[in-house]
Amino acid sequence: MSDELVTAKPLALIFDVFGTLVDWRGSVARDVAKVLGNGVDADAFARAWRAQYQPSMEKIRDGSRGFVNLDDLHLENLSVVLKTFGIGDLGAEDMEWLNCAWHRLDPWPEVPQALDEIRRHALIAPCSNGNTGLMVRLARHAGFPWDTVLGAQPAQGYKPQPQVYLTAVQWLDLEPSRVMMVAAHNEDLSAARDCGLQTGFFPRPDEHGAWEARDLAAESNWTIVADDLFDLAVKLGFAQSP
Amino acid sequence: MSDELVTAKPLALIFDVFGTLVDWRGSVARDVAKVLGNGVDADAFARAWRAQYQPSMEKIRDGSRGFVNLDDLHLENLSVVLKTFGIGDLGAEDMEWLNCAWHRLDPWPEVPQALDEIRRHALIAPCSNGNTGLMVRLARHAGFPWDTVLGAQPAQGYKPQPQVYLTAVQWLDLEPSRVMMVAAHNEDLSAARDCGLQTGFFPRPDEHGAWEARDLAAESNWTIVADDLFDLAVKLGFAQSP
Repeated sequence: MSDELVTAKPLALIFDVFGTLVDWRGSVARDVAKVLGNGVDADAFARAWRAQYQPSMEKIRDGSRGFVNLDDLHLENLSVVLKTFGIGDLGAEDMEWLNCAWHRLDPWPEVPQALDEIRRHALIAPCSNGNTGLMVRLARHAGFPWDTVLGAQPAQGYKPQPQVYLTAVQWLDLEPSRVMMVAAHNEDLSAARDCGLQTGFFPRPDEHGAWEARDLAAESNWTIVADDLFDLAVKLGFAQSP
Repeated sequence: MSDELVTAKPLALIFDVFGTLVDWRGSVARDVAKVLGNGVDADAFARAWRAQYQPSMEKIRDGSRGFVNLDDLHLENLSVVLKTFGIGDLGAEDMEWLNCAWHRLDPWPEVPQALDEIRRHALIAPCSNGNTGLMVRLARHAGFPWDTVLGAQPAQGYKPQPQVYLTAVQWLDLEPSRVMMVAAHNEDLSAARDCGLQTGFFPRPDEHGAWEARDLAAESNWTIVADDLFDLAVKLGFAQSP
């Protein structure tokens, strides 16, 4: 823990969600298997769908496309991936249900309890690229007790654009130095630190499974580096070691 | 209950807060008395402060002033009211503490339990003119288990401007006809209905105390008219009569 933190514990923690708090790969694969059956490699399908995620936001980040919600980008990307896998578009109802797989992502095991502990000491909110409606329904599914939802929709932009972090901080009426961005992704934290926020990192080696190629370790001296979210809560003095 | 409602129960309820869910007059008066002592009529002071509320938002509604958060308007209005009462500005710390009286408003007695019941059946969010940071802190004080905070800040406007209701509905990814605006104020509901929302009314005869001059009864055929929030939950089929 840095000296800085000892003198100024964060008053709010804001969180990356996909990968950091929830297992998108396993959860999406589960729902893919339900709709597409055994003939499709559901894990590969989930990874291919996720692989469209960053490129689909890029046009919005560079201004060549107006702001579009992640639910809508996911649906566009689903059509692309279905084609890649040689499957035509499903019926509207199945498309909609499968697209809402992103509302039904399971948390990594320690997350709900860790958020309950952290919440007793600080405000908590997602700072995700997911739209507010997605985050609200995901929170109901996963048991995340958010104070409010922050992230892409309030800022009308996508991380790592600075406006996403800065809008989150501003809407909480706090100084950036009293807010910690928590993520299992170094790039996300780097952008947050550039905006003046504290940073908390832990790895999620199973996010991409055997295909994990990055973010296996902290790549900078983040304010806190932990083993998982509960360990981060302990290092903040917000929870007791089990 | 109208026939319409029987066929389409709301999937989300959004709430006016000041007066509808919390007793601003009694709570602000309590904190006024703490700072200003016995020489001031704390109840009159609270009412005078609140009387500045609508006029201070009017310049923002008519576009002659950019969007300013309610916390900041409250602080400006506090200076005005202190002058009216013949008291100079307090020190910065007392000004700040007293201004945060609006973060410490007590709920009307049935509200926390009623929200818990409603939350089991629908999404819930404030749709207030209070800024997000104010609403988040007030929710912690009063025990409101919001899914997210909606209202003035997301819309960058003030009720009864249509954009406030429409942004709330849009951010929940719902049709207006599946969202109910709940308020103890007829004007608020009238604006929400004009945007296509369902409406739920109950009176709060003690909001202004002996000075209550309006909103003592429903002034239109709102979707539901109830005695209080718990009764509204019962009429929606979301709670059982005690």
